[in-house]
Amino acid sequence: MAQYSPSLDGVFGALSDPTRRVVIGELGRGPASVGELARSTPMTLPSFMKHIRILESAGLIRTAKTGRVRTCTLDRERLAVVDGWLAEQRAIWEARTDRLEKFVSNPQEPS
Amino acid sequence: MAQYSPSLDGVFGALSDPTRRVVIGELGRGPASVGELARSTPMTLPSFMKHIRILESAGLIRTAKTGRVRTCTLDRERLAVVDGWLAEQRAIWEARTDRLEKFVSNPQEPS
Repeated sequence: MAQYSPSLDGVFGALSDPTRRVVIGELGRGPASVGELARSTPMTLPSFMKHIRILESAGLIRTAKTGRVRTCTLDRERLAVVDGWLAEQRAIWEARTDRLEKFVSNPQEPS
Repeated sequence: MAQYSPSLDGVFGALSDPTRRVVIGELGRGPASVGELARSTPMTLPSFMKHIRILESAGLIRTAKTGRVRTCTLDRERLAVVDGWLAEQRAIWEARTDRLEKFVSNPQEPS
């Protein structure tokens, strides 16, 4: 079943934290270093790095180190798994509405 | 900032578990009792009830007890917060693409 998807677990879990959603929003404007991203939060760098690692494990961002600077880049395609899951749900709802409409117009027929 | 939303924390957190996503999918077909929903999983009823409570706390489902039967209903509107957040991200990406296009066509102008 498509809903048993480890990637969905990771992506939804990563998005359940406000700091991580802010990072996703910031990286939507373009790549940024961990130092630049950390400036928008009051937390320590090691605490912030935990969030970066969770985003990276979920595949939502990629990071690369050049010298002492680690640059983060958003992987927009990864967010598409959320769109895909929502589309699956809508398909279920529409199928239900179709069945209900069919029943209302032909209540005798077995559905 | 819209991204600091406790409701988004709860909704994304609730969706990060495969059992809870299956429940959302099942309830998309129509209301069902906790007993009916629990049949699709190998877990004990108390463990399953924890998932139901998390979905209820996130506002994704409503439950009502009649006699010994607790019936669950999906609140589709609550899933719209996910659509809203994704739309915000897309708006950020499009604004970035617009800035890049402007820069490519008028590299002298300050962006």
